Amino acid sequence: MDQLKFIVRSTWMLLLTISVNSDAIGQDRDRKIAFPDVPGYVSLKCDLHIHTVFSDGSVWPDIRIQEAVKDDLDAISLTEHLEYQPHLDDIPHPDRNRSYLLAQEYAKPYDLMIIHGAEITKDMPPGHANALFINDANLLNHEDPLTAYRAAKKQGAFVFWNHPNWIQQQEDAKPIISSLHQQLMDEDLLHGIEVVNDITYSEHNFELAMKHGLTALGTSDIHGLIDWQFGLVDGGHRPITIVFAKERSIESIREALFAGRTVSWFNDILIGKEEYIRPLATSSLTLRSKDFIGPSSVEEIVITNNSSARYVLRNLSNLESYNQSDVIIVEPGGETLVQVITNDAKPIMSLKMEVLSTVIGMQKHPIIDFTIKQ
Amino acid sequence: MDQLKFIVRSTWMLLLTISVNSDAIGQDRDRKIAFPDVPGYVSLKCDLHIHTVFSDGSVWPDIRIQEAVKDDLDAISLTEHLEYQPHLDDIPHPDRNRSYLLAQEYAKPYDLMIIHGAEITKDMPPGHANALFINDANLLNHEDPLTAYRAAKKQGAFVFWNHPNWIQQQEDAKPIISSLHQQLMDEDLLHGIEVVNDITYSEHNFELAMKHGLTALGTSDIHGLIDWQFGLVDGGHRPITIVFAKERSIESIREALFAGRTVSWFNDILIGKEEYIRPLATSSLTLRSKDFIGPSSVEEIVITNNSSARYVLRNLSNLESYNQSDVIIVEPGGETLVQVITNDAKPIMSLKMEVLSTVIGMQKHPIIDFTIKQ
Amino acid sequence: MDQLKFIVRSTWMLLLTISVNSDAIGQDRDRKIAFPDVPGYVSLKCDLHIHTVFSDGSVWPDIRIQEAVKDDLDAISLTEHLEYQPHLDDIPHPDRNRSYLLAQEYAKPYDLMIIHGAEITKDMPPGHANALFINDANLLNHEDPLTAYRAAKKQGAFVFWNHPNWIQQQEDAKPIISSLHQQLMDEDLLHGIEVVNDITYSEHNFELAMKHGLTALGTSDIHGLIDWQFGLVDGGHRPITIVFAKERSIESIREALFAGRTVSWFNDILIGKEEYIRPLATSSLTLRSKDFIGPSSVEEIVITNNSSARYVLRNLSNLESYNQSDVIIVEPGGETLVQVITNDAKPIMSLKMEVLSTVIGMQKHPIIDFTIKQ
Amino acid sequence: MDQLKFIVRSTWMLLLTISVNSDAIGQDRDRKIAFPDVPGYVSLKCDLHIHTVFSDGSVWPDIRIQEAVKDDLDAISLTEHLEYQPHLDDIPHPDRNRSYLLAQEYAKPYDLMIIHGAEITKDMPPGHANALFINDANLLNHEDPLTAYRAAKKQGAFVFWNHPNWIQQQEDAKPIISSLHQQLMDEDLLHGIEVVNDITYSEHNFELAMKHGLTALGTSDIHGLIDWQFGLVDGGHRPITIVFAKERSIESIREALFAGRTVSWFNDILIGKEEYIRPLATSSLTLRSKDFIGPSSVEEIVITNNSSARYVLRNLSNLESYNQSDVIIVEPGGETLVQVITNDAKPIMSLKMEVLSTVIGMQKHPIIDFTIKQ
Repeated sequence: MDQLKFIVRSTWMLLLTISVNSDAIGQDRDRKIAFPDVPGYVSLKCDLHIHTVFSDGSVWPDIRIQEAVKDDLDAISLTEHLEYQPHLDDIPHPDRNRSYLLAQEYAKPYDLMIIHGAEITKDMPPGHANALFINDANLLNHEDPLTAYRAAKKQGAFVFWNHPNWIQQQEDAKPIISSLHQQLMDEDLLHGIEVVNDITYSEHNFELAMKHGLTALGTSDIHGLIDWQFGLVDGGHRPITIVFAKERSIESIREALFAGRTVSWFNDILIGKEEYIRPLATSSLTLRSKDFIGPSSVEEIVITNNSSARYVLRNLSNLESYNQSDVIIVEPGGETLVQVITNDAKPIMSLKMEVLSTVIGMQKHPIIDFTIKQ
Repeated sequence: MDQLKFIVRSTWMLLLTISVNSDAIGQDRDRKIAFPDVPGYVSLKCDLHIHTVFSDGSVWPDIRIQEAVKDDLDAISLTEHLEYQPHLDDIPHPDRNRSYLLAQEYAKPYDLMIIHGAEITKDMPPGHANALFINDANLLNHEDPLTAYRAAKKQGAFVFWNHPNWIQQQEDAKPIISSLHQQLMDEDLLHGIEVVNDITYSEHNFELAMKHGLTALGTSDIHGLIDWQFGLVDGGHRPITIVFAKERSIESIREALFAGRTVSWFNDILIGKEEYIRPLATSSLTLRSKDFIGPSSVEEIVITNNSSARYVLRNLSNLESYNQSDVIIVEPGGETLVQVITNDAKPIMSLKMEVLSTVIGMQKHPIIDFTIKQ
Repeated sequence: MDQLKFIVRSTWMLLLTISVNSDAIGQDRDRKIAFPDVPGYVSLKCDLHIHTVFSDGSVWPDIRIQEAVKDDLDAISLTEHLEYQPHLDDIPHPDRNRSYLLAQEYAKPYDLMIIHGAEITKDMPPGHANALFINDANLLNHEDPLTAYRAAKKQGAFVFWNHPNWIQQQEDAKPIISSLHQQLMDEDLLHGIEVVNDITYSEHNFELAMKHGLTALGTSDIHGLIDWQFGLVDGGHRPITIVFAKERSIESIREALFAGRTVSWFNDILIGKEEYIRPLATSSLTLRSKDFIGPSSVEEIVITNNSSARYVLRNLSNLESYNQSDVIIVEPGGETLVQVITNDAKPIMSLKMEVLSTVIGMQKHPIIDFTIKQ
Repeated sequence: MDQLKFIVRSTWMLLLTISVNSDAIGQDRDRKIAFPDVPGYVSLKCDLHIHTVFSDGSVWPDIRIQEAVKDDLDAISLTEHLEYQPHLDDIPHPDRNRSYLLAQEYAKPYDLMIIHGAEITKDMPPGHANALFINDANLLNHEDPLTAYRAAKKQGAFVFWNHPNWIQQQEDAKPIISSLHQQLMDEDLLHGIEVVNDITYSEHNFELAMKHGLTALGTSDIHGLIDWQFGLVDGGHRPITIVFAKERSIESIREALFAGRTVSWFNDILIGKEEYIRPLATSSLTLRSKDFIGPSSVEEIVITNNSSARYVLRNLSNLESYNQSDVIIVEPGGETLVQVITNDAKPIMSLKMEVLSTVIGMQKHPIIDFTIKQ
């Protein structure tokens, strides 16, 4: 009897204004993830590491589509383990593309891209890896890692190393580039690395990515439910990779991933190369000169954040503030007023700030000179 | 240093979308009281019993203006006790119009009407009474009640009996019409009666009002702060009188009060004569036929509430419901879906409902046949 | 009149409590469902109609366990369709007990009872039915309905008719007792009927249940996610059957179901026989005399609700209220203050109230004389 | 990688607790301000700059008492302007102690200390100043500033310069020590300076305080209502001075103010001398080693914040994090989990962190080595 999706819950609304929607997906308040485009690129919100019952996950693919639509993602990939199949007795599925095919079907009513992927699941080295943009997952299922990676390459796959920090495979949580990994990179079989997986962010992994020129990714690696795993009721969100693509297409995502144009979002942190963090931050935050207070030398600057990430800033401008310390926080979708004492009432043209909530290297944050709109 | 009213509280916003406003009054989320107009009349939201430091209240008149603006009221009256002046040592104010004059001044920037009033404060009988639409409060200050009431009449005042149920003056909470009250009514000196005062609603008073043809009023009788007394943070609101006036003017309010066109709002209850409760309810609630579910005989009716009052309804239509019992609740500003089994799939033209959250007599509620828009 | 400072704002309370918990299941803000025991019985919270990927649901059984634990249920049953198997290509599962066996395994760490069940899925008549307390689902899988029901009986099953109102099987939503249904009852093969299914409550079904002596049940019939289908973020909850059992065991639930000791909970409505609604209401609501206000005749009575259901009451006592109309609402886990004018200051011993939020027949509510604790 | 189920979502917690209380003051959701004591001192929460109708404020003193009780303050001072008396026509009050005397009376039922004070209100220099711990405000009312300050000293007053940054008196918002100020300090007539006033925090003022050995204070300088001015409904709070006193008494507060033992709290910022910021931070934050994750080298450290201030920390330890960047936020009353990769699984004894949300000088934050409880 599940065809009746319309729910009006009048008796529970209290004083909240909750709109009545005509389908289950539309019921959600404010969980939609938003990041602005940057000059030259669209910012696509992607979760590229996801499981269903077709490997060791706990839901049918339709739930993954609905979760993604609720989160307003642009693209997802169901990356079932090729080797690890705990439900195999119940779900024999000889065709390892089955999860992808079902997802494609369920996604049809929505503007959500499904990227064909699979997880090559090996002991260390090389550990686990996701192959994306493949044609046939079955052909990747080889016991020998190298053979599997080479089969992925044959399909033009973008391959990234999953959770190298995973303590079950790396007890000290400090993965190293083994000779096998080196070979994978030498043969152009490995292109990326997870810096965020599930509820972990590994500074170590990010260092590896930067050092070896690997694309950094953040993924949910969800097995259960997104809402539960990431504390939706308390305002949490799944980790995603923001991909800076030339246009909104699967092919463009592929091109961007090979080119390394990504930022990972995890809790309040944005992690990525400085060249992508910088335009994302300047596109997300707008500084606008509001006015001087009365006839004084105190200028009012309003900082607006049109993204879902909380920004923590450290003002490095050599200016005394009138209502803030040098640490300034701008909430998602919010505004913060900064009153600054000018020199001789000359308008301030920019604020130089260390963007503490973004990370461009091990404990390293970009310093950005934000222009103030007059 | 209180000239700086602009506050941006970015660091506290959590995930709430709170708009940045340029003055203190604008900071409030969703406390504005709303009731729709009814055919032939505008619905004016009035609080006609209020105190300041100029009698036994705890705030200067400017706070009363700001509270009223935040609540989006149309009119208020500062009704200082003529006789009870506990602050007299500190505030001698020989001119008993002082509170009104200050309020007028403070209200100038806003679209808020200030009605000149005063409280004639006597022992029982006749107890306390407010005189509204007066010219000079000083002339009402007489020891003898009758003299005071007659002076009010000379100024054309509308006079109403305050909290007849007040247990300090009426231990059994069951006031009666004394011979003095009868004389007041005979001389046309008494025109109304409070059925709601502060945090009390007296069914007994309402019976008196109906029996004696007195206009029923609901007032806050606020002495401290509106927000604290009426639990604003928990969604509470002050009691008001909704006055059905021919136009939005003080003169029209006066005409309407003399004509008895009022409904009092208290917590979730609307109290008034059936002839005014009825249009208020039908203006507040809209019933719209949404559709039949699939090819079935089940019709979907959406009830929308565009007022600040919660409506509790009891469906008396001889129809089986498909998703509700006969008790239907429609939250303030909310919508409720009612699925009803039709006879032979013929569209339903109306629903007959007892409107339990409105009161037209002692434990008596109107039965209204709500038309369904097709 | 500002001496009355006591305000109980039960109707406005958001019952939020947020705490930091050490596992995923514990993260939830007050979603745990609570109903008090009644004299002679424990009140067990059961959802006895649930699907997983093993029929046409979208989740693996482990999610169903976690949902139930979060809701603090006592018992659930995974009632997979025996006949309708849309995932059969992917999940051939020759053993129709598989879902139950997995659920038992997943439930081990928790204090949650798993009842072995299956859904016998036929066209009308007789429509769909759940068989509970079975030993082997495979033996129930027969094309002929009667054969299937008789096989269920052989296993001692309690069998109830699912959503007789379902418009896909009953376009006019008004099911009747066909000759086949009559035969099922005559042979003692049918024992209950759903009055609540998913997001529907059928007054018609309840009439059928009462007329034919069938046990009334409320179930979620969940296929997707409980949180989404029932609007958890807006305070919604799944429908359940409260079973009044002699002790907390599967055998006792079975005995209680055969004996018809149930109340169904749906949105704000409790539906059941008067003999069970009555003790549930009196166990849920406590009325306590707080005091008289000052030296007056006004008595303060506090009504406390220690259940998850909102109570809407209509006071039928011949007493004038001092702060309420006759319609009184007590929120889940909340308190409501009722001030009543006594006669000659004699303490009031009880309040007679129609409990509008409970249903004991078609548009019929019990009238209960609630004792006031002095 | 779904084995890591532990999530602490400290940064998202709305610290709401709602309960039913028996008096108006008690109705408030967690607005009570809390700071722990520090070794050797009790931490007293004080607001030492407040106005009522007895100068240019908008409320009677009783409201100030109730606001302070709701905020759980230890001490307040009503510091009426001696010279600026806009309500003088209405409130002639020849005795300038009147406000204090009334406050004392209203405070009697509560555990709230009332400090006798007054505001000496002059043009620049010297501007406005509050004199606290006086006996008779009338004796301070002199046209000549020096005479007024000397009269204050004769009463043993602690005197602090109010809002030196005030743009109506200091257009460039950069006050300087004039020769008159120098003289005041030389004669020991001036002892403190506001670094926080109303909705401003002046880094410049704090520099002045540090340079000249003046006690730094934060005050509300409230004229209207605390709740409105500081955005209570959005989680805001009034600025206060936390005074580190030997015991909870007015005399001890006086001793502590003369000794300079204060921290000012404004929005999310704590401002003070390093020697007091340091123990306040270490008393507020507790770091506890929870465990190692499984058999790995990753240690879990829980940081608990038992104060009302949000802490923003920057981890300077030379350790790679497993779930955080170096910027760590611990919400008021919340917990944050930090997973750190140890060296060879040796327990970590402390974390060295820059406490960004505290200020000990112009854009300067203390670096504290927080001990980890094993």
